[in-house]
Amino acid sequence: MTERADVEAVNVAFYHAFESGDLDAMTELWIDDGETLCVHPGALPVRGTAAINRSWALIMANTPYIQFFLTDVEVSLLGDVASVTCTENVLTADETSDDGSFNGAKAVATNVMVRTAAGWRLWIHHASPVLSDPNHED
Amino acid sequence: MTERADVEAVNVAFYHAFESGDLDAMTELWIDDGETLCVHPGALPVRGTAAINRSWALIMANTPYIQFFLTDVEVSLLGDVASVTCTENVLTADETSDDGSFNGAKAVATNVMVRTAAGWRLWIHHASPVLSDPNHED
Repeated sequence: MTERADVEAVNVAFYHAFESGDLDAMTELWIDDGETLCVHPGALPVRGTAAINRSWALIMANTPYIQFFLTDVEVSLLGDVASVTCTENVLTADETSDDGSFNGAKAVATNVMVRTAAGWRLWIHHASPVLSDPNHED
Repeated sequence: MTERADVEAVNVAFYHAFESGDLDAMTELWIDDGETLCVHPGALPVRGTAAINRSWALIMANTPYIQFFLTDVEVSLLGDVASVTCTENVLTADETSDDGSFNGAKAVATNVMVRTAAGWRLWIHHASPVLSDPNHED
């Protein structure tokens, strides 16, 4: 149970780094590798930690406000690898939003982590928009 | 290099099973576990191999024709776990299609496999629609 809690804590730290626009914290959560993978919702894959860091810097610079409410958080452990699946219920505001106005969206994320000497670190983040009726799995 | 080729061959077998509507072949490609994960494009996660098999049965029953052209196939190895990322360029036809008419779409997939005595088997499949300009990573 402690391992699952550790994995879930890293997952929470990941969303907290994004919410607070903390690129250093985000960078520390990833293994530094050329084969890491990040798929932002609706986008093509970004491969390698250096490119992933640049993608986060760009996203954070263009996201004045973002807040995540995670639901359906499920942890799966397989030796030295763990995955967390969750539904990201997202509130955002950008420069085009009226005062006090927010955009809501829903995405599904798979976050795959590996065990390192420093703790669990991200290897893969794949987020995708939820387009279908939630009561109808195609 | 042989390991990467083995992993890529299982990835090809996965899409072949889907294209040929072969549910038995698809089922054999997954580890039988309650914590496997499958995200179909735009959908919420399906968790556990039994539920995943049911989802494939439903999709195959409703897909008279589907063909995948995979591009940007990238294999990443991490001990007993491997991931394949690829762009799925998809051609489909369904009962609403005119004769000789196809629908085209593009998705990005992350396929995470684990090493078993029987070879590499799927643990996670996460596919997501590509919505953004391919030249603009957000």
